Amino acid sequence: MAKIRIALISTGGTIEKTYDELSGLLHNEIHGLDVMLARLQLEGVDIVRVPLMNKDSLEMSDADHTLIAETAGSLTATHDGVLIVHGTDTLEVTGERIVTLMGTPRVPVVLTGAMRPYIMRNTDALQNLTEALLAVQLVEPGVYVAIHNKVLRFPGVKKQRARGTFA
Amino acid sequence: MAKIRIALISTGGTIEKTYDELSGLLHNEIHGLDVMLARLQLEGVDIVRVPLMNKDSLEMSDADHTLIAETAGSLTATHDGVLIVHGTDTLEVTGERIVTLMGTPRVPVVLTGAMRPYIMRNTDALQNLTEALLAVQLVEPGVYVAIHNKVLRFPGVKKQRARGTFA
Amino acid sequence: MAKIRIALISTGGTIEKTYDELSGLLHNEIHGLDVMLARLQLEGVDIVRVPLMNKDSLEMSDADHTLIAETAGSLTATHDGVLIVHGTDTLEVTGERIVTLMGTPRVPVVLTGAMRPYIMRNTDALQNLTEALLAVQLVEPGVYVAIHNKVLRFPGVKKQRARGTFA
Amino acid sequence: MAKIRIALISTGGTIEKTYDELSGLLHNEIHGLDVMLARLQLEGVDIVRVPLMNKDSLEMSDADHTLIAETAGSLTATHDGVLIVHGTDTLEVTGERIVTLMGTPRVPVVLTGAMRPYIMRNTDALQNLTEALLAVQLVEPGVYVAIHNKVLRFPGVKKQRARGTFA
Repeated sequence: MAKIRIALISTGGTIEKTYDELSGLLHNEIHGLDVMLARLQLEGVDIVRVPLMNKDSLEMSDADHTLIAETAGSLTATHDGVLIVHGTDTLEVTGERIVTLMGTPRVPVVLTGAMRPYIMRNTDALQNLTEALLAVQLVEPGVYVAIHNKVLRFPGVKKQRARGTFA
Repeated sequence: MAKIRIALISTGGTIEKTYDELSGLLHNEIHGLDVMLARLQLEGVDIVRVPLMNKDSLEMSDADHTLIAETAGSLTATHDGVLIVHGTDTLEVTGERIVTLMGTPRVPVVLTGAMRPYIMRNTDALQNLTEALLAVQLVEPGVYVAIHNKVLRFPGVKKQRARGTFA
Repeated sequence: MAKIRIALISTGGTIEKTYDELSGLLHNEIHGLDVMLARLQLEGVDIVRVPLMNKDSLEMSDADHTLIAETAGSLTATHDGVLIVHGTDTLEVTGERIVTLMGTPRVPVVLTGAMRPYIMRNTDALQNLTEALLAVQLVEPGVYVAIHNKVLRFPGVKKQRARGTFA
Repeated sequence: MAKIRIALISTGGTIEKTYDELSGLLHNEIHGLDVMLARLQLEGVDIVRVPLMNKDSLEMSDADHTLIAETAGSLTATHDGVLIVHGTDTLEVTGERIVTLMGTPRVPVVLTGAMRPYIMRNTDALQNLTEALLAVQLVEPGVYVAIHNKVLRFPGVKKQRARGTFA
């Protein structure tokens, strides 16, 4: 069985936050996605990495959301699926933007993120990345978030802030 | 969105193997599945645990495979999906047995396992369990193995012994 | 060989900081020391836990340092050693305070802490706690910090802020 | 404070055992010690690695024990301490051999090992290595085992096989 070719757009967010031990704060500074990908045994997909930006999603401008949506749109032309790793706080803005700009894309576009950075023992980053990497192979064309053992289709997905997940 | 109700049949295998520090050997002795499930954030499924047996799958008899297949068949009547955690060495025997006995079941039946036990740092157990728990929500009724970022449908799935995965 | 009896005073600090996924900040909220102690195989010491306070050491008042020093002093009367887990930012203030109040205590008093919380994969918490739990058995009576593979004796120990360790 | 120079002799043993997922067995094949050393923040010692052999200690011959003892003896001439990582099953044979050949060495010689390999989540390898790396700085010249929060001096140390530690 041929592997499906997916483009993986990274934009920053909690999933890749690192800890500055001298200040005691969490930052978006380096790309931990490659470490996570190396820990998974990926027999189903061939991944093309597209590091687009590295921002806390609360700091994304309207132009940032459009840029991510347009980049995802372009990549659907040449890949079997597109994955977007995104901060959860404004993930839904980017998801809706893609639907607004593209309607139903040619191939699945799946967004994911994390509530607890990869650098923490109890991270949800590996779970969510694993789910997104499988969902992109199984769902029909459309725009989705895959997180916390669920796959939800845009439009209409909202972060449940009090519970720390999506519905 | 209502959670889907799945039955999770555990049968043993590498995924739950533990280490006896006094003998230096690996055994099937306790159920580590509950520890793994507790580490995942499962918003999509409600799980009913069915601990059926705890065997290295090389030691399963023909009657064992039939028992697992029949138990899975019974559970399809009352659940939205059935998951089977199984040693990888004879996982395909159980998968084929289910197809032989049931044809296409009423709901998805997904088998999974691991090449490296959960107790090891570089385990594939959490990845495979995560994938199986998502696939059971996304695939149409049938019998599958979900492992290493792939979902393969029975009949015809084979372990690739030299590579340590399925195709 | 009889185990030595040590009192373990906890005061908070980075070592036990936890992550609030809804706010994205690190807090001193719960006691993770018991989890760390459970992961170590401690055949040399019997530990009496004394949870005295739970503060970021930058927020300790002068009275807090005196309270910790006096508590340590009291516990030297009835134990073979005293361990103090402390935020590194003002650890040296407490160390000097003990020397000022007690001179050379009857038994070893060993302070330790961490630059990266236990909840992070790359934590130094387990290393430092392991070192403190061994040093308290090996050094002569006095006041020390045990951290990062070194044991330094008060007075005169200083945090090297730019390097994130002590000298 | 100048770092002390220590020679670290590796000989194999459980601490570095790896898992062969195709056979399901544990082997002594690669050197995991460098990974462990990279995870520790070592401000007290400068380490010279001496990879002498890589054997399950049950398979060491009498000549192997003598070779390790003589190598340790040679290295005491030019270092401030010598560490030996060794399988626990015959660690005491090597410890006694050093005492027989050298009496009290010029600098501390500290042996350590592990009951559960580093590749396992619940390993004691990092704890024991941390302890040995600190003990070698704190004890007076002699031959010791540092393991499980204890430092014991040869001659006379014995593995407690039923309990999985030393006394």
